[in-house]
Amino acid sequence: MELLKNKIQTEGRVFNDSLLKVDSFLNHQLDPQLMLKMGEEFAKRFQAEPITKILTIEASGIAVSIMAGLTINVPVVFARKKKSAVTNDFYCAQAYSFTKQETNTITVDKKFLDPTDKILIIDDFLANGEAALGLVDIVNQAGATVVGIGIVIEKSFQPGAKKLKELGYRVESLARIASFSNGNVNFL
Amino acid sequence: MELLKNKIQTEGRVFNDSLLKVDSFLNHQLDPQLMLKMGEEFAKRFQAEPITKILTIEASGIAVSIMAGLTINVPVVFARKKKSAVTNDFYCAQAYSFTKQETNTITVDKKFLDPTDKILIIDDFLANGEAALGLVDIVNQAGATVVGIGIVIEKSFQPGAKKLKELGYRVESLARIASFSNGNVNFL
Repeated sequence: MELLKNKIQTEGRVFNDSLLKVDSFLNHQLDPQLMLKMGEEFAKRFQAEPITKILTIEASGIAVSIMAGLTINVPVVFARKKKSAVTNDFYCAQAYSFTKQETNTITVDKKFLDPTDKILIIDDFLANGEAALGLVDIVNQAGATVVGIGIVIEKSFQPGAKKLKELGYRVESLARIASFSNGNVNFL
Repeated sequence: MELLKNKIQTEGRVFNDSLLKVDSFLNHQLDPQLMLKMGEEFAKRFQAEPITKILTIEASGIAVSIMAGLTINVPVVFARKKKSAVTNDFYCAQAYSFTKQETNTITVDKKFLDPTDKILIIDDFLANGEAALGLVDIVNQAGATVVGIGIVIEKSFQPGAKKLKELGYRVESLARIASFSNGNVNFL
């Protein structure tokens, strides 16, 4: 998606040739028009799928997911990150964040996932795939079906996308990064 | 806002005559069409104000704020809740959550608030006003101006709204709850 790639080129900041900060439009400050365009793009790419619900993770996945939900006209559920104990009313999974270097327990209330649900998973970044795999795990626990995984920024040089595709999931990423070099972003 | 009040009446659940759970459309599962309507309502109520930016808190404030930002056509910044140490690059404030019974340090990167900014603060709940006051504190630290505070659900029997109004802030709440009784919600 050219609009997003341009935004990454102009506003993204690369650290240590592995970390990309896009907090001016995706992770801290949000650009609403870009979020809408990205939500519409996910809706278009997955239009053949009988999506009944979108599943994402707080906090950076929410804005783009609500725009996709608005376009597709389905509810959005955001998994919560918890460090405390979780009751039996919740599905939970472990997810390690590459960016934050910490493991979170992600949880979803059982009443918001149904075995008949066809779920589109959306997240902001895909690096090693831990968050997406955690969400897939939760959908499977509910007996529901993952119909696709939509990612805003895929770091294609890390193994997440490959792992998810090998498991049979369709992954659609709006920007795919081949590498970082000298503070620059090189797209696939 | 009638649409929201109807949603609270049909889907909200009251606990101990003080706690209202609206996790089927606002705090865990999100209703995108309702979020858009609420964002538009905030835009309408504050249309006379020269808003340059919306400030909210992760995670439940993000969805409605991004819809308000889309309608008003301004960026949205969400404050992060942290328990860890915060560097000098961030404004921070303390905020006690009545719902969660815990104190969070809320932080905003200094580069996203400017002394010329006219800020609309938006949050999901207003009870004792701690979160809103924390956001006001951060705006003041930046030397920016709060032009109004938009709240989805105000618990008018708790002191937050009164406190904020006494400090001179305009508070616009989409639903104002006078009391809970026998598991029912009574609006003002």
